[in-house]
Amino acid sequence: MHYVKIIVFDEECFQGRRHEFTSECCNVMEFGFETVRSLRIESGAWIGYEHASYQGQQFVLERGEYPQCDAFSGSNAYHIERMTSFRPIACANHRECRMTIYERENFLGRKGELSDDYPSLQAMGWCNNEVGSLRIQSGAFVCYQYPGYRGYQYIMECDRHCGEYKHFREFGSHSQTPQIQSIRRIQQ
Amino acid sequence: MHYVKIIVFDEECFQGRRHEFTSECCNVMEFGFETVRSLRIESGAWIGYEHASYQGQQFVLERGEYPQCDAFSGSNAYHIERMTSFRPIACANHRECRMTIYERENFLGRKGELSDDYPSLQAMGWCNNEVGSLRIQSGAFVCYQYPGYRGYQYIMECDRHCGEYKHFREFGSHSQTPQIQSIRRIQQ
Repeated sequence: MHYVKIIVFDEECFQGRRHEFTSECCNVMEFGFETVRSLRIESGAWIGYEHASYQGQQFVLERGEYPQCDAFSGSNAYHIERMTSFRPIACANHRECRMTIYERENFLGRKGELSDDYPSLQAMGWCNNEVGSLRIQSGAFVCYQYPGYRGYQYIMECDRHCGEYKHFREFGSHSQTPQIQSIRRIQQ
Repeated sequence: MHYVKIIVFDEECFQGRRHEFTSECCNVMEFGFETVRSLRIESGAWIGYEHASYQGQQFVLERGEYPQCDAFSGSNAYHIERMTSFRPIACANHRECRMTIYERENFLGRKGELSDDYPSLQAMGWCNNEVGSLRIQSGAFVCYQYPGYRGYQYIMECDRHCGEYKHFREFGSHSQTPQIQSIRRIQQ
């Protein structure tokens, strides 16, 4: 895995207590943070989680500046104001991403092969606003509840769960619905 | 321009008063709507606007289902609960999108050529969290304030402003900042 770095701050706009991480952090409170209010990704792609130990809502973090919670927390639909744990996405590879989506759970029903970014699955021919299960052959993807990369985010990696997500409850620790309407690759 | 259709509802989850549009709507209140609470894009790519006459915050709408305001309103950073006008994006062409971004206003400074989706401009080599001006040669793009397609949205089209946006105040009627950290093509 190549070099990765995230810098977190406990105040907005990169002020206050500061800490750099070059590997995963299971609980930022152990570093004296009550919460993270701004952050900068210097290298790599990361996942932020609402709760400690990589639980709760998840959101992708790519290189750039996030001056306030609104800039990194995932969703309008379920607004969160906290990031308590985070880890790099080892297998992110923007050029070689392949996944198969299935209409029903356990890899059943109609299927679709994806290797690009899809702001609307329906526009590319998927006749459903849901995905029952999916398999990642290579790379990492973010799946979103609504078109245009909005709503709940689920991050799917080829090197987790053996790349297999056979029921929507495996999409994330907070996932309540199989609704997925846009999918994109993750950029390292 | 090919056939386009949006269906809007004044209650969440596609309930209540309903109206179909196959062309632009300058003010949905003229059709007896107080606001739009859910919508479905059946065909085409559209722009929704906060205020009448295509003013205020703007957000891209692609094919799929948006069961509540949170699903279509653009941004976490500036949360809106209303869509009052909307229009189709005539020139959206996912396969042939080309734009040039410039470091400074009036097409000055360093430049970058884009023809793909960029969840992080910094990851692709743009050393700045701002774009001073830009020119669209073909197609239509959405530019976002933060990485990963978050924050304010600005929709840029080759057939508006002659494809030229020479100052951030031309990015949209509400634009307050030249900060742009992710850009993607719009899918018809």
